[in-house]
Amino acid sequence: MNPIFSALQTSVFEVMSQLARETGAVNLGQGFPDDPGPEDVRRKAAEAVIDGWNQYPPMMGLPELRQAVAVHYKHWQGLDLDPDSEIMVTSGATEAIAGALMALVTPGDEVVLFEPMYDAYVPLVRRAGGIPKFVTLTPPHFGLTEEALAKAFSPKTRVVLFNNPLNPTATIFSEADLDLLAAFCNRYDAIAVCDEVWEHVVFDGHRHVPVLGRPDMRERTVKISSAGKIFSLTGWKVGLVMAAPAIMRVLAKAHQYITFTTPPNLQAAVAYGLGKEDGYFEGMRADFQRSRDRFATGLRDLGFQVLPSAGTYFLNLDIAPLGERDDVDFCRRLVTENGVAAIPVSAFYAEGAVKNVVRFCFAKRDATLDAALERLAERS
Amino acid sequence: MNPIFSALQTSVFEVMSQLARETGAVNLGQGFPDDPGPEDVRRKAAEAVIDGWNQYPPMMGLPELRQAVAVHYKHWQGLDLDPDSEIMVTSGATEAIAGALMALVTPGDEVVLFEPMYDAYVPLVRRAGGIPKFVTLTPPHFGLTEEALAKAFSPKTRVVLFNNPLNPTATIFSEADLDLLAAFCNRYDAIAVCDEVWEHVVFDGHRHVPVLGRPDMRERTVKISSAGKIFSLTGWKVGLVMAAPAIMRVLAKAHQYITFTTPPNLQAAVAYGLGKEDGYFEGMRADFQRSRDRFATGLRDLGFQVLPSAGTYFLNLDIAPLGERDDVDFCRRLVTENGVAAIPVSAFYAEGAVKNVVRFCFAKRDATLDAALERLAERS
Ligand SMILES: CSCCC(=O)C(=O)O
Ligand SMILES: CSCCC(=O)C(=O)O
Repeated sequence: MNPIFSALQTSVFEVMSQLARETGAVNLGQGFPDDPGPEDVRRKAAEAVIDGWNQYPPMMGLPELRQAVAVHYKHWQGLDLDPDSEIMVTSGATEAIAGALMALVTPGDEVVLFEPMYDAYVPLVRRAGGIPKFVTLTPPHFGLTEEALAKAFSPKTRVVLFNNPLNPTATIFSEADLDLLAAFCNRYDAIAVCDEVWEHVVFDGHRHVPVLGRPDMRERTVKISSAGKIFSLTGWKVGLVMAAPAIMRVLAKAHQYITFTTPPNLQAAVAYGLGKEDGYFEGMRADFQRSRDRFATGLRDLGFQVLPSAGTYFLNLDIAPLGERDDVDFCRRLVTENGVAAIPVSAFYAEGAVKNVVRFCFAKRDATLDAALERLAERS
Repeated sequence: MNPIFSALQTSVFEVMSQLARETGAVNLGQGFPDDPGPEDVRRKAAEAVIDGWNQYPPMMGLPELRQAVAVHYKHWQGLDLDPDSEIMVTSGATEAIAGALMALVTPGDEVVLFEPMYDAYVPLVRRAGGIPKFVTLTPPHFGLTEEALAKAFSPKTRVVLFNNPLNPTATIFSEADLDLLAAFCNRYDAIAVCDEVWEHVVFDGHRHVPVLGRPDMRERTVKISSAGKIFSLTGWKVGLVMAAPAIMRVLAKAHQYITFTTPPNLQAAVAYGLGKEDGYFEGMRADFQRSRDRFATGLRDLGFQVLPSAGTYFLNLDIAPLGERDDVDFCRRLVTENGVAAIPVSAFYAEGAVKNVVRFCFAKRDATLDAALERLAERS
C-alpha cells in the first residue's frame, strides 16, 4: 500500500466531528453552519432531482452553471471568463485541489506551501510526486515577505498552493502580499493554485481580491471556489474552478478520471443561487459577522484571549494565557470534560507547529454559540 | 504540467455525448438510460435536501447508507460486511477507482489490467506511479487463461484492476476465471480492485459472483459498486466501496483528501433505494433485457452482426462484415451522416486495439431505440 496514505491519521476535522456526535458536545470544530441553508436554493435542488436530468451531465459542468459562474464573477470581481474554456465544476473544492496537483505537478517538481495550511495539502502534494517547500507565516498578520519567498522558491518550483482568505488564521492577504506572490510566480514560471473557498465570507466591508484577476497572473492561476461555502451548504460538494484555457485543458483531464462529473441537480441549484441579488451575499456576510461578534464578545467577557477574524467561519483563541501549552491536549479535554469540540491549530502545520492556538467555528445559531460559551466558562 | 494528463484526449464518452448534443443525434454512446429513473428514490433525495442535513456528512458515508449497503449485499450476495470498518461511500465509482490506485500503488509497483478496459484505468494507474501490465482478453468469451496471467503477473505485481461484468464486451467472467484470478492474487500477494459497477445489470437469470465473497480473496479485494448504475441514475455519482478493514483504512485516507465526502441527500436516497424488495431489481433487469432484445433483434433484422450481451447497458456490433475496417472512422460517419452516436471499442485498448467492433447503449426507451434502428438502416 502507498506509504504516504497508509501512514496518515484520520483528518482532525472528522475525528472531532465524530467525537462531538458520540459525546453530544457542541461542535465548533469542523467548519459548517448549523442552520439549514437557503431554502430557495435547496428547493431548486429538490425540483431538479424530480423534474430534471439525473444522468451524466457534461463533464465540465452544466452549461447553465458555467454561464452563471461567468456572470457572477464578472459582476462581483470583474473577472472575464469564457464559460466554455475557462470554467469547470468539480465534486467539491477538495477534488479541485487534488486534481490541480495531479494535473500540474510532475514528480520531482517543487511546490511552495504556506503554513499554517489545510491538512489535505501536504499529502496531496507528496502523492502527486511534488516536493513541498514551506513558508511559515507568522502572527499577527500572517503576511508574505520577500525573504521567506526567496528561500522557498527555486528554479524547480512549478506550483504554489495559496489559500486566501486563510484557514485557520482567519486572515486576508494584502495587495502587497499578492504583488510579492505574483512577482515570484512570474520570476520562477510557477502556477498559483489559489484555494479561495472563503472569498465570499469576509467581514468588516472587506472585498476579496482574486489572484486570477491580476493581468500578470491571468495565464498562470487556478482559482478554486466552493458552492458549499458560498451558500452555507458544505455537504453539497460542488467546486468551481477557473483558469486560462491552456491550464484548464489539463485540469479537465484530471477531473475526467477522478470523479468525471458532479450531480446535476445540485449544479442546477447552484446556478440558480449564483444569480441572487447582491443583498443575499451581503446578508450572509452580515449574519456571519454578527455571529463572530457575539462569540468573540462572549469569549472576551469570559477573559479569553481572542485573535482577530477578518473572514472564514473561524476565530482563534490564544491558550497560552490560560497556562495551556498543548493545543491537542487542550482540545481533547475541552471536548470530553466540557463538551465543546474545537480544532487544535497545530494540525495545520507540517513542521514547527504553533501549539498555543485553538480554532472555533462560529458559523452557528445563537443558541449553539451561547451553549458553547456556557461550557467554555468552566475553562476560563 | 504533468505529461500523463497533458497528453490525454478528452474521453470518447464525453466527445460522443457532446457531438450528439450538438448534432441532435440519437445518443447510444455514453452508458446512461434516457428514462428519468425511479421516482420514489428521486423523491427521497428531494425530501432530504429540503428537510435533511446539507452539511458535511461523516467522511465514510451516512451511517444509514453504510448499514443499508451491509444489509443489501448480505441478502443479495451473502457478503458479511461490517458497516463501520468495511464500507465507504465515494463520489462515484470513478473516485473509488482513482482513490484505490492512489492508496494501494507505490511508484514502481506493477498493476495487471485486462484489455479491453474502461479508458480511465491506464492514466490513473500511470499517474499513481504504477506500471501497467496488460492481459488481452479475446472473443468470444473474453476469459482468463493461466498462460496470459503467468505472463502478466510478477513478484512486483501489487494490484490487479478487474472489471466484472466487463465493459465494453458485455461479458461475465466464469467461476473458473475467478478461481484463476484468485490463485494468481494469492501467489503474488496482490490486491484485486474489482470494478463491479455492472453487477446489478445482468441478464438471462445470471447471478453476479463478487470476488470479495471468496474466502481466499476476502482480505485482498476492494469491491467497487455504483448507486448510479444500481438505480439507473448515472448523474448521482454515489460510489460504494467494500473491503477488509486493513485495506479500508488506507482507502479512507485517499478518499479523505480526494473528495472528503458525498452529498448527504443523495446518500439518504440511495440508503432508501437499497431497501427495495427483490422485485424492483428483477424488474429493472427484465426491463433492460427487453430493451437489449428489442435492439438486438432490430439490428439482426437489418442484417447486422450482433455480438452477445450478458450484462451492462451495452451490446456490440462486428462491423467487419460491412466492409468497415476502422471503428473510429465508422463512428464518426455514423454520428455525422446518420445521426447515431456509438463508441468505437478501440478506445478501450492501450495496445493491440481491435478495430472492427462498435458499442451501443441499449438502456433507452423503445422510441429511442426504434429511432436509432431507423437511422442505422441507412448503413446496413
Ligand atoms: C472537509 S472538513 C474541513 C472543513 C473546513 O474547511 C474546516 O473545518 O477547516
Ligand atoms: C463516465 S462516462 C462512461 C460511462 C460508462 O460507463 C460507459 O459509457 O462506458
